[in-house]
Amino acid sequence: MLRYLNAGESHGKGLMAVLEGVPAGLPLTAEMINGDLARRQGGYGRGGRMRIEKDQIEFYCGVRKGKTLGNPLGLMIRNRDWDNWQDVMAAEPGPPSVERVVTRPRPGHADLVGAMKYGHRDIRNVLEKASARETAIRVAIGAVAKTLLAEFDVRVVSYTIRIGSVVAPRVDDYVEAFERAEHSQVRCADAVASEKMIEHIRSAKHKGDSLGGVFEVVVTNPPIGLGSYAQWDRRLSARLAMAAMSIQAMKGVEIGMGFESAQRFGSEVHDDIYPSEIQPGFERRTNNAGGLEGGITNGQPVILRVAMKPIATLYQPKNSVDIQTKEPFEATVERSDVCTVPAAGVVGEAVIAYEMANAMLEKFSGDCVDEMKRNFAAYQEYVKNF
Amino acid sequence: MLRYLNAGESHGKGLMAVLEGVPAGLPLTAEMINGDLARRQGGYGRGGRMRIEKDQIEFYCGVRKGKTLGNPLGLMIRNRDWDNWQDVMAAEPGPPSVERVVTRPRPGHADLVGAMKYGHRDIRNVLEKASARETAIRVAIGAVAKTLLAEFDVRVVSYTIRIGSVVAPRVDDYVEAFERAEHSQVRCADAVASEKMIEHIRSAKHKGDSLGGVFEVVVTNPPIGLGSYAQWDRRLSARLAMAAMSIQAMKGVEIGMGFESAQRFGSEVHDDIYPSEIQPGFERRTNNAGGLEGGITNGQPVILRVAMKPIATLYQPKNSVDIQTKEPFEATVERSDVCTVPAAGVVGEAVIAYEMANAMLEKFSGDCVDEMKRNFAAYQEYVKNF
Amino acid sequence: MLRYLNAGESHGKGLMAVLEGVPAGLPLTAEMINGDLARRQGGYGRGGRMRIEKDQIEFYCGVRKGKTLGNPLGLMIRNRDWDNWQDVMAAEPGPPSVERVVTRPRPGHADLVGAMKYGHRDIRNVLEKASARETAIRVAIGAVAKTLLAEFDVRVVSYTIRIGSVVAPRVDDYVEAFERAEHSQVRCADAVASEKMIEHIRSAKHKGDSLGGVFEVVVTNPPIGLGSYAQWDRRLSARLAMAAMSIQAMKGVEIGMGFESAQRFGSEVHDDIYPSEIQPGFERRTNNAGGLEGGITNGQPVILRVAMKPIATLYQPKNSVDIQTKEPFEATVERSDVCTVPAAGVVGEAVIAYEMANAMLEKFSGDCVDEMKRNFAAYQEYVKNF
Amino acid sequence: MLRYLNAGESHGKGLMAVLEGVPAGLPLTAEMINGDLARRQGGYGRGGRMRIEKDQIEFYCGVRKGKTLGNPLGLMIRNRDWDNWQDVMAAEPGPPSVERVVTRPRPGHADLVGAMKYGHRDIRNVLEKASARETAIRVAIGAVAKTLLAEFDVRVVSYTIRIGSVVAPRVDDYVEAFERAEHSQVRCADAVASEKMIEHIRSAKHKGDSLGGVFEVVVTNPPIGLGSYAQWDRRLSARLAMAAMSIQAMKGVEIGMGFESAQRFGSEVHDDIYPSEIQPGFERRTNNAGGLEGGITNGQPVILRVAMKPIATLYQPKNSVDIQTKEPFEATVERSDVCTVPAAGVVGEAVIAYEMANAMLEKFSGDCVDEMKRNFAAYQEYVKNF
Repeated sequence: MLRYLNAGESHGKGLMAVLEGVPAGLPLTAEMINGDLARRQGGYGRGGRMRIEKDQIEFYCGVRKGKTLGNPLGLMIRNRDWDNWQDVMAAEPGPPSVERVVTRPRPGHADLVGAMKYGHRDIRNVLEKASARETAIRVAIGAVAKTLLAEFDVRVVSYTIRIGSVVAPRVDDYVEAFERAEHSQVRCADAVASEKMIEHIRSAKHKGDSLGGVFEVVVTNPPIGLGSYAQWDRRLSARLAMAAMSIQAMKGVEIGMGFESAQRFGSEVHDDIYPSEIQPGFERRTNNAGGLEGGITNGQPVILRVAMKPIATLYQPKNSVDIQTKEPFEATVERSDVCTVPAAGVVGEAVIAYEMANAMLEKFSGDCVDEMKRNFAAYQEYVKNF
Repeated sequence: MLRYLNAGESHGKGLMAVLEGVPAGLPLTAEMINGDLARRQGGYGRGGRMRIEKDQIEFYCGVRKGKTLGNPLGLMIRNRDWDNWQDVMAAEPGPPSVERVVTRPRPGHADLVGAMKYGHRDIRNVLEKASARETAIRVAIGAVAKTLLAEFDVRVVSYTIRIGSVVAPRVDDYVEAFERAEHSQVRCADAVASEKMIEHIRSAKHKGDSLGGVFEVVVTNPPIGLGSYAQWDRRLSARLAMAAMSIQAMKGVEIGMGFESAQRFGSEVHDDIYPSEIQPGFERRTNNAGGLEGGITNGQPVILRVAMKPIATLYQPKNSVDIQTKEPFEATVERSDVCTVPAAGVVGEAVIAYEMANAMLEKFSGDCVDEMKRNFAAYQEYVKNF
Repeated sequence: MLRYLNAGESHGKGLMAVLEGVPAGLPLTAEMINGDLARRQGGYGRGGRMRIEKDQIEFYCGVRKGKTLGNPLGLMIRNRDWDNWQDVMAAEPGPPSVERVVTRPRPGHADLVGAMKYGHRDIRNVLEKASARETAIRVAIGAVAKTLLAEFDVRVVSYTIRIGSVVAPRVDDYVEAFERAEHSQVRCADAVASEKMIEHIRSAKHKGDSLGGVFEVVVTNPPIGLGSYAQWDRRLSARLAMAAMSIQAMKGVEIGMGFESAQRFGSEVHDDIYPSEIQPGFERRTNNAGGLEGGITNGQPVILRVAMKPIATLYQPKNSVDIQTKEPFEATVERSDVCTVPAAGVVGEAVIAYEMANAMLEKFSGDCVDEMKRNFAAYQEYVKNF
Repeated sequence: MLRYLNAGESHGKGLMAVLEGVPAGLPLTAEMINGDLARRQGGYGRGGRMRIEKDQIEFYCGVRKGKTLGNPLGLMIRNRDWDNWQDVMAAEPGPPSVERVVTRPRPGHADLVGAMKYGHRDIRNVLEKASARETAIRVAIGAVAKTLLAEFDVRVVSYTIRIGSVVAPRVDDYVEAFERAEHSQVRCADAVASEKMIEHIRSAKHKGDSLGGVFEVVVTNPPIGLGSYAQWDRRLSARLAMAAMSIQAMKGVEIGMGFESAQRFGSEVHDDIYPSEIQPGFERRTNNAGGLEGGITNGQPVILRVAMKPIATLYQPKNSVDIQTKEPFEATVERSDVCTVPAAGVVGEAVIAYEMANAMLEKFSGDCVDEMKRNFAAYQEYVKNF
């Protein structure tokens, strides 16, 4: 079973995580992870900070000579701008760095509730952690999970399907769509829609406004039988929904036909089962279920769509109240992204990959990759002959 | 912290659960729970079985003289039809009750994947547990949670906002809407929409088809500060999404403005903060966030909408394949509900109430209700003066 | 992974538990469990209540036709004396059954601290749950675990090695010792020591006093590689110690040479490794480690010794203070056992079996017993060729 | 609730941990932690490596201007000898550093079982993690926990009571004993016994042998009511035992009178309850229970004794078998400590402090220290008037 805890303030020394339960013998290099870190930092609509960051993973421990040890992994992403923040964010006792004290909560952020919850009078103590900066380390964790999944030919891909009012056409071939999306500045598989999305973002930026959107995450080639209906918290559908909604700024998630299925007749929704034409066993010719029946993978691609609200920080002011003076003010801009849906898709891949890898380990176990593969192969053989 | 495990097959002796962590001294009677059990069984569109069931809670342990003991609660709901099933479902070794062996998986159910996962050749072993019958015991657990929440004037309500193609108008006053919905056969707050929904269900039934829909769950009067951004799995938004998606047949969940917020500009989405006019402190005049910022309650009502797919069992046949003969067939009807969205809302209340009660206990702790209230009151005083 | 929650007051309707994670297809009958329940109730030195109880397991759910379903198991042990307690312990609201209100805490029990913690003025609310009566349901859970372990030829046995000042000679052959102990009234493998123990108990009873003792639990034939040093809470040694110390009245636990190893030189303690003479691989000729190195099983028998304090309820009075009147008094007798070490050994087997079964599932996984066995067999083959 | 995961190989870049759940506003400086890190490294009987290490904590995140933020803490202890190991332990892919490959398992270590479990052919992959080097980061975590406990006047102290055959006299005043022990090279409170212990170690070293021993950990001034009998895994006695036994090389643990209570009559063991003479309420004049009744603190000091086996690495050879050649050999020395019981006591304090802090948070909750103190104070007032 995988577990992790992450830590780190946005402008602190960096982000870190301990990831426990990765089997021994998994080939793992920084390149594998840095690719996803770079993908998270890209996308049309990002503001200035992304250029500073250039995230790089450091394996602090748990990997040796390019392979995991079965020990917990120590993952770190250093803050390349730390020099400019080391006084403000110093761990050592000292007076507050007055010019950086924040007393003005931004609507749409955790600022006000975080300060109340934790008893902070300097809202910086909240925003440094609640910020989406944290997703960088989650992308790193997800990249490890993807590497493990790849050993079983399972892939997790994503692409943007909506930004604001612009919707991309429906995708048929997920991997192909993903590959096209990787060449789009907004991570959208459709060239025309990409152009419109970029234009939409440009226009929002001009108005000092921001945009959200929807991305789709797809798990291709999952084995049959991950997750369980045996207890509510083992349903993979529930776990995937939790993972998706744990990403900053996500406000909705759906699986397969999702909300649309609520509008349809049952006869239009449920996927028929047929004898397989190309191999022993069963097949489905539609995938309205999004790969999950009874909280369990059915071997079809697992499909989620996740809705992101617009970035909460706007040039265009919002009303708020200073927690010190209790005076109203118009909320300031801390950062200047206009739209981060392209990045959010990469984060979405990461959190879903983590859950999938965990579900694989629950089903196939294994202290080293060879053991896991051995168990997996025997099960696949069994399934084929079911 | 609350924990529970539940158990029980649909046609077994009954359902049961152990619920751990309820503080001592909570007034609790069977009536409080039976009300919700009855609500779950109601609604236009249910088939025959509901009439048999008439669920009643039994406190096996953990409650004495009408109050909780701080000990784990043992909850049971007996199967009133057990006499007719005791041979088929007997725990004792014996030959299978041949006439009840199921080898024909129904599309849209866990039947096929469950059999493969667990190695069952009799699909009854799957359907007995994966069935939504299990939600009865979850409603009981949720009713206990609601009783605890009520001590803090927190309520959890729900109502139907869509069945198939029929949508109800938007609700303004949640509690009033709930109360109206309680008098609707489809648990919809709007009388006109209710009528249309009933007609829609009647028509679907006539065609041998089924319908899904969407319900809204609202938590009124939550304290500020439940949940946390400090670690991904402590975000209340994520936990609530997991809870909602752990219900059988749910395919989507959204919080506050949800998927719609992905279509809007940021300036239209984020809720301004104002000085409170009626008390010291802060207020918001909109609630697009659905009561959650940064994964933490902000004191506004918590609002979720949950999409349910149509019932998977249809009179109108679906294609499937017998797992024994490997022959195709047209899928049979095991039960005859047409639409269970009204019931699903009650289940939605239950799972959300459970998560809210848990979040309350995490924040306010307390081995007995008095201690929890003492901690709560002192915190509310602190918040007022923040 | 196994999980369970149990519930039940001593004089309530009964005890119950939900046990989650048992693989499907495990043969399981009430007889297998009732044997251990009877063993727990036996032993020289028990008072009157044991004769009433005659515990019998009921499978409420999770078992069908003599096999587990992969669903959670619902286990129940009814209180055969419930008729006499149904008013006192009624769940329904009502006045306290005055004659049964307890305000006098017994030294050595949870009575006083439990009342303070939970805010009870009637100590009965504490003693009904804190009592060792709860161990009956844990024995049932352990018996399920033993049944699973037996599929892999792993056994968990116990025997008494000390009662008060009487010590049994050291055991060489664990299974043989166990079988002899099963014929001893004090569950001691040595006939002479058994006699002395019985005499010691008889003498203590005569004085109105009570006795504790030490039992040994041994897991025979465990596979190599259960548990892990990779994170503190995965060390099997730690988990087994927790399990042992979670039993009511246990005050010490040791593994292998235990406390004695603290007195010896390293050269006398560590077990040499030799090439195996009878099979490919390695062997040890001593087992001072008690089968665990680095928190991991090494294939040798796992050996624990657990110390039980004397029964806290004595005919011979102890000083205490009434929580209502605040007056001192001499503590009363609620029950009349003199020594329950023989029973405690059976409970010890149960809790250790549970942890071992869980460790097996972590290593070998498997949704059904066949899958678990397949993974196990392949691993054993690998180990043989290491 | 506290959670942590730690990571790090002995000769890697360093050790790290993420510690989650520490309330905001706790004053915390590196000095507070470095003191315990130094204590762990001290003691007569240590070999050469300790002089290299000179552990220093680094707060990577979670602490700002000398106070915790409510965010997860990132803790790091760098390996000061990393320069000499960076090739051998490099994360990057590359050929094994042949001269450092270990194929010879040491008896008494995890070497052989770890290699088998994880599929390693280089035992270095095992020993780097299973080593007691890991306890340094646990000491750091424990020091944070102690700092939190200190806010409530709860202290955790330890001292050595046995090394090999030398036993110290019984302690009456725990804190005084602790303070004396802090000036002893073997952390023993008694000057005469200290001398004998040192001589015993010197003699063992001369023979190329090693020694273990026993230390006592005491929690002074715990509040009444931590832990619970309500579910087996909530018993504080069980959790403390798990914590103690999770330390490398520990083979036994006992609470209060421990194993000795198994030898005594009940009338000699259970602690009488008296009306308090100095304050309202109750008092006990003995503490054979070691501060825990029914798995719950009773307000008396919590007392554990923990047995450590001798260091497994000896100059004096042990028999073993090379995993590559399958040839027998005499086991080599990797490090040269003779006795680390003095250090183990410091580790014991740490793991017990962690569990106590966790139990405090479960009972008193609080997102910031002020909230926790407020809840605590109100409870203490309630207890006084019980």
